[in-house]
Amino acid sequence: MKKQRMLTGDRVTGKLHLGHYVGSLKNRVRLQDQYETFVLLAEALTTHFDKPGLIRSHLREVALDYLAVGINPDHATIVVQSMIPEIAELTVLFSMFVTVNALRHNPTIKSESKSSGLDEMYYGFLGYPVSQTADITFCKAAIVPVGEDQLPHLELTRKIVRRFNELYRPVLVEPKPLVGDIPRLVGTDGNAKMSKSLGNSIMLDSSPEEIALKIRRAVTDPARIRKNDPGHPDHCPIYAYHLAFRKEGAAEIRESCEQGSMGCSECKQRITAAIEQLLAPMQERRSYYAGRPKRIDDILVAGTERARTIARETMLEVREAMSLNYF
Amino acid sequence: MKKQRMLTGDRVTGKLHLGHYVGSLKNRVRLQDQYETFVLLAEALTTHFDKPGLIRSHLREVALDYLAVGINPDHATIVVQSMIPEIAELTVLFSMFVTVNALRHNPTIKSESKSSGLDEMYYGFLGYPVSQTADITFCKAAIVPVGEDQLPHLELTRKIVRRFNELYRPVLVEPKPLVGDIPRLVGTDGNAKMSKSLGNSIMLDSSPEEIALKIRRAVTDPARIRKNDPGHPDHCPIYAYHLAFRKEGAAEIRESCEQGSMGCSECKQRITAAIEQLLAPMQERRSYYAGRPKRIDDILVAGTERARTIARETMLEVREAMSLNYF
Repeated sequence: MKKQRMLTGDRVTGKLHLGHYVGSLKNRVRLQDQYETFVLLAEALTTHFDKPGLIRSHLREVALDYLAVGINPDHATIVVQSMIPEIAELTVLFSMFVTVNALRHNPTIKSESKSSGLDEMYYGFLGYPVSQTADITFCKAAIVPVGEDQLPHLELTRKIVRRFNELYRPVLVEPKPLVGDIPRLVGTDGNAKMSKSLGNSIMLDSSPEEIALKIRRAVTDPARIRKNDPGHPDHCPIYAYHLAFRKEGAAEIRESCEQGSMGCSECKQRITAAIEQLLAPMQERRSYYAGRPKRIDDILVAGTERARTIARETMLEVREAMSLNYF
Repeated sequence: MKKQRMLTGDRVTGKLHLGHYVGSLKNRVRLQDQYETFVLLAEALTTHFDKPGLIRSHLREVALDYLAVGINPDHATIVVQSMIPEIAELTVLFSMFVTVNALRHNPTIKSESKSSGLDEMYYGFLGYPVSQTADITFCKAAIVPVGEDQLPHLELTRKIVRRFNELYRPVLVEPKPLVGDIPRLVGTDGNAKMSKSLGNSIMLDSSPEEIALKIRRAVTDPARIRKNDPGHPDHCPIYAYHLAFRKEGAAEIRESCEQGSMGCSECKQRITAAIEQLLAPMQERRSYYAGRPKRIDDILVAGTERARTIARETMLEVREAMSLNYF
């Protein structure tokens, strides 16, 4: 039986961190043999349109992170979004399938526009779910691993697909979301989400020293002042990291924290070691590829070309369904 | 010296009428040797996305009208918009150069959204000036003949072009509007504008009988009840037609109307004859091409291919300027 297609990807805004790893990368690596996998590198023109040089280096950094975590370019197709003109064509077509109000009231757009402090949203930013629909449908992905915050976007994608298929012909595939068990990872500052711009992240290429420093400086349960005070692991980022990266020892940590029998320092040392251990083989692969920039380019070119072939086929079918196949 | 490029075109919603002729077609024919001319057939996906079959036949009808009025495919490049993926690519890029508010407050979008009775504007409709910017810039048009109602759109285009050229590199050309002397033609019902959907238009392919009937039924100065009453030509569509199509006799018409010395019937006969005379050679060319559908397709294919080559060049320069030219 033919494998279903899975579309994943990232807006490229620089190197990835542990939040990306637990939220999506880990799942992708796990699923890349089960599904025919496409990983889309979406250039963040929305936020970087005035720093073009950065996009290119970010693109390579993220590709490097992918290869480091174990995405296998022989199994997964890594694609540079802006090199697929069919995605732009689909975006323009789908612009007619969704109203401004539906986009405005999309909770993700609402909160993103608030958090990035835009009084005046860019037109393309408002249409982000439309372009995401093009990202997903160009390869007819059936499965899309998403964070919980992306669910409203995907619901809109499903609506657009249904509308297209009803109006014309069932050409497009209605994608299903796949929400991971750890949709977001708390920052070292206790913020709900790791975010590079907040400086509360452990990057996938952090050195052991950097990891140790970040963890040492990380906030813990604020109510636990002395070592022997009973702690509240559910309010402590470090405990969240134990759950994410050292599940086998998490029950013990919870117990000894609540009893006040293990101090934060020891608890932090244990998680530091676990994260180091997780990242070490990734960083080995990273330095292997980092020394071979030509190999990374080859992977991006090959993946993008493969995706382009599929995008062309989809676009032909879309044109045919819409009677836009004149010549 | 190399000729400047001129971009003109129409949203394809069916056959064209005299309003199109005086408003733009006449100018295009006049200017097609002076400028390197591109005529863009923009499929009205916005309003026809649910009637795809119609788009194709409308496309050929409008091409036929172009050839009929004297657009010379050896001088002017006739282009099918949706066959130029670079226009979609530019549309997506330019989406990041304009805010939702700037689009919402664009007077043309405001009034169009009112007149078409959309409570809920489609996202792509709101972005019409963005896609128009892509239409204009793909061939670096320096001159864009527009109706007065299109001036705010073009102002936005100029802003987007300036913004792009400032941020990156002066790749794009800031287009100048060219407003015709008769920007709109009053309908036979006295409505400010001929519009096929109002049934107040004389189509370019109307037979002499149809023309005569339309003119006979056209409203005139409502204050002129008897033949000898003095008329008010400025309130009469028929006088507007004399000005548009029979300028040499218009002064006489004004005088005899104001004096009540010529009746509406004779006045209408004169303009009927003039319109018939104007349309006769066009209709001859029309039937020549109508019997040669293959020739029309060839013209569209050749024009679109020529435009595609230019669009590819522009897109390469745009990618280079934005540092999106990875491989």
